[in-house]
Amino acid sequence: MSYADPRGFASDNRSGVHPEVLAAIEAANEGHAESYGDDGWTHAAEDLFRKHFGPHAVAYPLFNGTGANVLAIAALTRDYEAVICAAAAHIAVDEGGAPERHTGSKLLTIEVEHGKLTPAEIADFESRRGDKHAAQPRLVSVTQATEVGTVYTIAELAALADTAHELGMLLHVDGARLANAAASLGAGLGEMTTDAGVDAVSFGATKNGGLVGDVILFLREGLAPDFEWVRKQGMQLASKTRFISAQLEAMLGEGELWRRTAEHANAMAARLGRAVEAIDGVELAHPVEANGVFATLPREAIDPVMEAMPGHHPFYVWDEGTNCVRWLCSWDTTEEDVDGLIEAVRAAV
Amino acid sequence: MSYADPRGFASDNRSGVHPEVLAAIEAANEGHAESYGDDGWTHAAEDLFRKHFGPHAVAYPLFNGTGANVLAIAALTRDYEAVICAAAAHIAVDEGGAPERHTGSKLLTIEVEHGKLTPAEIADFESRRGDKHAAQPRLVSVTQATEVGTVYTIAELAALADTAHELGMLLHVDGARLANAAASLGAGLGEMTTDAGVDAVSFGATKNGGLVGDVILFLREGLAPDFEWVRKQGMQLASKTRFISAQLEAMLGEGELWRRTAEHANAMAARLGRAVEAIDGVELAHPVEANGVFATLPREAIDPVMEAMPGHHPFYVWDEGTNCVRWLCSWDTTEEDVDGLIEAVRAAV
Amino acid sequence: MSYADPRGFASDNRSGVHPEVLAAIEAANEGHAESYGDDGWTHAAEDLFRKHFGPHAVAYPLFNGTGANVLAIAALTRDYEAVICAAAAHIAVDEGGAPERHTGSKLLTIEVEHGKLTPAEIADFESRRGDKHAAQPRLVSVTQATEVGTVYTIAELAALADTAHELGMLLHVDGARLANAAASLGAGLGEMTTDAGVDAVSFGATKNGGLVGDVILFLREGLAPDFEWVRKQGMQLASKTRFISAQLEAMLGEGELWRRTAEHANAMAARLGRAVEAIDGVELAHPVEANGVFATLPREAIDPVMEAMPGHHPFYVWDEGTNCVRWLCSWDTTEEDVDGLIEAVRAAV
Amino acid sequence: MSYADPRGFASDNRSGVHPEVLAAIEAANEGHAESYGDDGWTHAAEDLFRKHFGPHAVAYPLFNGTGANVLAIAALTRDYEAVICAAAAHIAVDEGGAPERHTGSKLLTIEVEHGKLTPAEIADFESRRGDKHAAQPRLVSVTQATEVGTVYTIAELAALADTAHELGMLLHVDGARLANAAASLGAGLGEMTTDAGVDAVSFGATKNGGLVGDVILFLREGLAPDFEWVRKQGMQLASKTRFISAQLEAMLGEGELWRRTAEHANAMAARLGRAVEAIDGVELAHPVEANGVFATLPREAIDPVMEAMPGHHPFYVWDEGTNCVRWLCSWDTTEEDVDGLIEAVRAAV
Repeated sequence: MSYADPRGFASDNRSGVHPEVLAAIEAANEGHAESYGDDGWTHAAEDLFRKHFGPHAVAYPLFNGTGANVLAIAALTRDYEAVICAAAAHIAVDEGGAPERHTGSKLLTIEVEHGKLTPAEIADFESRRGDKHAAQPRLVSVTQATEVGTVYTIAELAALADTAHELGMLLHVDGARLANAAASLGAGLGEMTTDAGVDAVSFGATKNGGLVGDVILFLREGLAPDFEWVRKQGMQLASKTRFISAQLEAMLGEGELWRRTAEHANAMAARLGRAVEAIDGVELAHPVEANGVFATLPREAIDPVMEAMPGHHPFYVWDEGTNCVRWLCSWDTTEEDVDGLIEAVRAAV
Repeated sequence: MSYADPRGFASDNRSGVHPEVLAAIEAANEGHAESYGDDGWTHAAEDLFRKHFGPHAVAYPLFNGTGANVLAIAALTRDYEAVICAAAAHIAVDEGGAPERHTGSKLLTIEVEHGKLTPAEIADFESRRGDKHAAQPRLVSVTQATEVGTVYTIAELAALADTAHELGMLLHVDGARLANAAASLGAGLGEMTTDAGVDAVSFGATKNGGLVGDVILFLREGLAPDFEWVRKQGMQLASKTRFISAQLEAMLGEGELWRRTAEHANAMAARLGRAVEAIDGVELAHPVEANGVFATLPREAIDPVMEAMPGHHPFYVWDEGTNCVRWLCSWDTTEEDVDGLIEAVRAAV
Repeated sequence: MSYADPRGFASDNRSGVHPEVLAAIEAANEGHAESYGDDGWTHAAEDLFRKHFGPHAVAYPLFNGTGANVLAIAALTRDYEAVICAAAAHIAVDEGGAPERHTGSKLLTIEVEHGKLTPAEIADFESRRGDKHAAQPRLVSVTQATEVGTVYTIAELAALADTAHELGMLLHVDGARLANAAASLGAGLGEMTTDAGVDAVSFGATKNGGLVGDVILFLREGLAPDFEWVRKQGMQLASKTRFISAQLEAMLGEGELWRRTAEHANAMAARLGRAVEAIDGVELAHPVEANGVFATLPREAIDPVMEAMPGHHPFYVWDEGTNCVRWLCSWDTTEEDVDGLIEAVRAAV
Repeated sequence: MSYADPRGFASDNRSGVHPEVLAAIEAANEGHAESYGDDGWTHAAEDLFRKHFGPHAVAYPLFNGTGANVLAIAALTRDYEAVICAAAAHIAVDEGGAPERHTGSKLLTIEVEHGKLTPAEIADFESRRGDKHAAQPRLVSVTQATEVGTVYTIAELAALADTAHELGMLLHVDGARLANAAASLGAGLGEMTTDAGVDAVSFGATKNGGLVGDVILFLREGLAPDFEWVRKQGMQLASKTRFISAQLEAMLGEGELWRRTAEHANAMAARLGRAVEAIDGVELAHPVEANGVFATLPREAIDPVMEAMPGHHPFYVWDEGTNCVRWLCSWDTTEEDVDGLIEAVRAAV
């Protein structure tokens, strides 16, 4: 039986599985395979990650982005060390306290503009370096694309990596939407990460057309030699890993599905952003650089737009205080979907 | 590309996805759906769990058995409380220390025969009830079917539940192979759990023909009112939960797929057990009551049997000290597979 | 051999043990006593806490303020719940991440003025009440006297308690300097806490003339029935508790030593504050309401003042950005000490 | 007011503070001192630990044995690693689950005789080295003197250290009664630990005439470079550390108080052991090698002996199943105390 809703703009995880990904899963459903990640599909996916992220990249498939983010911290910090991130970072506000609970590490947060940290902000925490009463910063975590739809340039990431390394820290990227960022920059995945000095990446697959599964990547040698145990103890080791890896293979293989889906979603957001920006009374709260549009509307217009859209919860109010709404585009968002939303906004404002 | 191995007896998680389960996933891949478990497929699965386990059963789909087991402990104990289990319980020896790490709770273990705890063994820990230097037992965890292929009778479970409750504790069942146990007993899922007084169940789906996903079940009202937060903080909340729930619906719906697959796997194990038991030099280490056969062979026969089978790692030596091997049957094990193994054993012994 | 420094203003924990407290320790050093807190001195101290804080007050002596603060959180929250506190609260910035590590709970911080939270700020977090992606606030923690030497009025505490309770939360007071606050308000200890609706208090003894030892107090029935186990698992159960309790008895007994020492330290801070405020170029950063003076000086004056004082590190620069220094007075600070500092400031500015 | 009990044999932590230790505390109560362990008394104690345990020994005073044991694990293992210890080790049965809660590490326990582990038992756990489903052993923890009053020889400790190191592990000694063991062996503290290859020691001071305070020692360079943060986050950093360190200085200084008190307690236990062993119906459950006597009595004799002694709880029944009682001697136990107990046993048996 179908319980499906019409397509909306609430989240890119509302969409289903891309047909090429589902086909890969189906193709992997044959015979037996070694469990817990020692199968051929996983080895093939590992090769593809090395191809994209460089020869030292080590990839561990796991279940979800929370797992990838938390276990990156678990692997790269000791419990008495701290993680620097934006105050509105997903790990700080939307993981239900999982980082603190599972790793013991403290999050040191910074209020930032447009979702992006700067080297100077990171360096501010040095004032308590060596102070035994303060958890010592060891990891910087940034989100790319950010939670508000902006994208760090490669130079910005490189500057963050340089500062982190100079201060004895590592740089982690929460890449739930890494593909959208790479597509936005027209850059390769490794060019934007490994080459910029990033140490570890939570590589998001689910939001970009996957069924279930994300990946944690360590990009330099020796960073997390015992990660197998971190993943197992972190409850993120899939017995039938082949079905996660088959998805990754479909995305990262020759057809470059990851880029096609991301480019499409970005293009839909760009189309939407351009159109609503032109509407009097609507303002973009952040530059539209990936697959999300954040716009402020007159308060009284928000409900009418919601009601004009099919389905319930067609999108979220991101900030009640500023009447800012969030519209996320997905791999399956159509131009008609976008134009329908534009029309609804025009009518309501 | 296919990387599949031939079918073997190494584990029931080596097999793939049952065609009916895969079809359900495909059918669920339509349109958008609320993420994080608030979708129609999940609601339907929740209804089916209530149908099987009783009107107070609350079901939370999550990723894997480790997650189900650990989060059951997290939900039902405080960090300073302890869990009683068998020394060879999966949670004690095969979860990589995840229960201790994530919950802080101590495991109090008992050496048992044939994998099964008794009420008297549980009661032994009462000698330190009220002693502030000792973590206080709050949860008893048993595995059904056990790690060595035996099955608690309903009366045995009821006696454990009664003792646990009298002592102010709760009873959790690690049901990675709950379906095999129910099929073995010819019992309903609720008859064997809720009706026997069990409080919580880790319901295994992956091993029984699933792709990914297991479930934690709370069987009585009010046991874990905040479990949504336990699951999120426990890194076990799937964004596209519909694809886990669709599998559960396929298994628990009218066709009773869960029972068909379990009965088949059990029948294959029974066929295997009967045959090898009759071979001179082979002995069953434990009664064959579910889908696993544990047998002791002459040491020199083990390698030849391995080599006679297709694939590498066709099964595991379970206990090097006693030359005990483990053969697990799956939903897709065929009579030919079984007969081939029997033949290999006969030839080698 | 003596390694003592001259008296300074760096911290109230630089001072030694009040003679009456030391005498009580000596008097308790007789014969044997039940260990782990089941001795007569501890029972007497428990009685005194009930006398001061009301008949339902339950007192657990433990080692230090970090322990009291962290175990208050451990006892009053589940790991998936959160604690609201000021961004500059001691638990947020000076406990080395102990709250997060040991309890798993997330700290939700607020930038505040003069160290004091308001009910409205607490209520702001309600916007995510019920959201399963956000740790749910369960405890509000305020510091009395605050980290910057200010004091909540009883009415302010009562308003915080009311709001916390209305929102389903509890109110904890970090009372490392609770005595100074009570002395400042001319209030009883219970009048300022229990009667105002406070649920739990970290009662500081070490800074107020003690040798080692602080206390966690639960002020209403049934708040932490299993705290014995929380304390033991929290590594804060002293085997020879009698020597902590004897100190508490000396402080809280008929002679009201706690108030005499606090009043003295407060008076010294008041004397200091009044004098330096009158010096051109010096400004008080916060009202002087307890035993600490926070003042901004011309940057070039700070080093000369330091050098004019005896000992090294005679005080700390609290905020390099604003040239704010912290001067803390202790139970043993003399008028001569204060006047010497005043003179040094006058000379340098 | 005095609440003291008469001297008994319940525990060596029932006794008070040795007069020389108390005098040292009094002498330290002068002027101000740097807090948090950066004071002259602590530096002097650190020197003494280097004198006894070798030039690389790094000593951190902290509050109690639970803290020392748990933070040794926290410092020397990662959360996904495991600790091998005896099933009856204090860390396994009498720390309220603190090791698991605070460190996340799993305890792997072994049933042993007379409280002592052997290299072969340690090596048994190697069967799961490299298995990603099992927490990997990283630390061996033994108790010296053991929980049942026996003492490892230096050769036994050296053999354990060698095996541990060969297997990539470290050796920790829970030395709550290390002084009694050294006195028993007539060995130096470093001779019995550092020279034997021990890596870390929980050095007990409280039971051996102290007021409050124990120490964690790292005996080789580079073992725990960040321990300051582990201690702080572990809630074990005393603000007025000088009063713990002054005790340590009194014990470890020229007068060798630590050895005198330990030798005395051991001698009292030897006197007691010899006498009761000669009584028909009494048997020593373990060799008397330190300050504890473990003896089995006829069940009906236990209560009369209890009643014949002054005070309540004059000693504990250690094992109800075998009628084994525990008698611990302290630094203040007198020959008269011992002879009184001997007489009571003779009369009752």
